[in-house]
Amino acid sequence: MAMLKQQLRLLERITETISYNLDLDEVLMQVVALVSETMKADSCLIYLTQDHHLILKASKIPHPKMINKVALRYGEGITGWVAEHRKIVAVSEKAYEDSRFKFVAQLDADEDKWEAFVSIPITYKDEVVGVINVQHRKKRQHTETDLSLLKMIATQVGGAIYNAKLISETRMLKEALETRKVVEKAKGMLMKQQHLSEDAAYSLIRKKSMDMKKTMKEVAEAILLTLSL
Amino acid sequence: MAMLKQQLRLLERITETISYNLDLDEVLMQVVALVSETMKADSCLIYLTQDHHLILKASKIPHPKMINKVALRYGEGITGWVAEHRKIVAVSEKAYEDSRFKFVAQLDADEDKWEAFVSIPITYKDEVVGVINVQHRKKRQHTETDLSLLKMIATQVGGAIYNAKLISETRMLKEALETRKVVEKAKGMLMKQQHLSEDAAYSLIRKKSMDMKKTMKEVAEAILLTLSL
Repeated sequence: MAMLKQQLRLLERITETISYNLDLDEVLMQVVALVSETMKADSCLIYLTQDHHLILKASKIPHPKMINKVALRYGEGITGWVAEHRKIVAVSEKAYEDSRFKFVAQLDADEDKWEAFVSIPITYKDEVVGVINVQHRKKRQHTETDLSLLKMIATQVGGAIYNAKLISETRMLKEALETRKVVEKAKGMLMKQQHLSEDAAYSLIRKKSMDMKKTMKEVAEAILLTLSL
Repeated sequence: MAMLKQQLRLLERITETISYNLDLDEVLMQVVALVSETMKADSCLIYLTQDHHLILKASKIPHPKMINKVALRYGEGITGWVAEHRKIVAVSEKAYEDSRFKFVAQLDADEDKWEAFVSIPITYKDEVVGVINVQHRKKRQHTETDLSLLKMIATQVGGAIYNAKLISETRMLKEALETRKVVEKAKGMLMKQQHLSEDAAYSLIRKKSMDMKKTMKEVAEAILLTLSL
C-alpha cells in the first residue's frame, strides 16, 4: 500500500516535471533522479534515438563527458535489443550473463556488475524514440507495478520528446518564413533601386551572407535599413 | 489496495490514449469515458478555454448538440471559478447549494441535482487551458488519491492540448512557407514572360485567387504549370 502510494507520488512528480519544464535535457535529468530515488536504483540511464543510433542523454551518476558521446547501434547490447524489438527486458539477477549484455567501457567501472536490469523502450505514436535503463547491483524482483509504472513514465517521456521536437520544428519554420519575407522585400528593393534582375538581386544577398558569415536574414535586414535611409 | 491498483490502471490507459491518439477530440472523449468508469461518475465534462471563455468539448452523456455550444465566462459557475482561480473545488455533498454553482439549462435536466462535484483546472506551463468536472448524484467523499489522480490526468490532458496546438501551428507554418515559395516562383515567371513589375505580378495572382475562390498557392501552381508548358 505504502509502496503503491509512493509510486503514485513518483508519477505525480514526473507528470509535473514534464508539464512545467520547457527544456528536454532538464526533463530527462529530473526523470533519472526521480526514478533512481523511488526505485533505489544504482544506475539509471536514458538514451534517445538519433539517426538509428541510441545516444546517451541522461545518467544518474553524472558522466558529463559521456552525455551525447556514448552511442549504441540498434541491436547492440540489451539497450539496442530493446529499441530494435520494442519490448521490455527485465532481468532480476545475473544480468551480466545475459547474452545481449554489452559492457560499455566508458560507463561501467570494473566493479559494476549489474545483477538486476530493466530496459524499457520509450515510444511515441508507435515510434521508438529512446530507451530507459534501471540497474541494481543486487538482485531485485521487479513487480508488475514496477514495470507498469516504468512503462507509463516511458510513455510520458515519449510525449515530452515529441513536444520538444515540435517546438524546435515550429521555431525553425517561423525563422524560415521570417527569412523568406525579409529576403523577398530586400530583393524587391535591390531590383528597383539598383536595377538588378531578380536572380542577380538574390545572388547578391547570398554572396554577402557567405562572405560576411551572416545569415541571409541579417543581410536582408541590413539592406532594407540602408536602402530605406 | 485494489482501489489504488485500479487507479494506476486508469492512469496507464489515459497515458496510452494520449500517446497514441493524434486527434484531440478523440482523446477528450476517451478521458471522459475512462474517468467516468473508474470513478463511477454520473457526469463528466471537459471544457477548453477559447478567447477567455470555457467551451464544452466532451461529455460523458453525449450532448452532441451541446458540444462546442455551451460557453461559460471566466468566473461563471464553479467551472468558471476554477479556471479563474486555478484551484481545485471538491464538494462532497449539496454541491447545488454552493454559491458558485450555476445551473446550465442546456446540460442539466430538472432531476439533475449534483451532490458531489469535483472541478479541476487543466493547466499547461502555468496557463489554464481548460477544466474537468466530475459529478455524482449521491454524496461522495473524495479521497486524497482521487484528487491527485485527477490532477495528474488534468496535467496530461494539458500536455495533449498543447501538443495539438503545436501540431496545427506547425501545419499552418508549413503551408504558409510552401505558399510563399510557390507564389514567389510564379511571380518570377510572370515578371519574366509577361514583362510585369513585381507588384503587378503579385496583384494578378491575388486577384485571380479572389475571383476564382482558390488559394494563392493553387493559383500560383496553375500559373507555373501553364507557363512552363
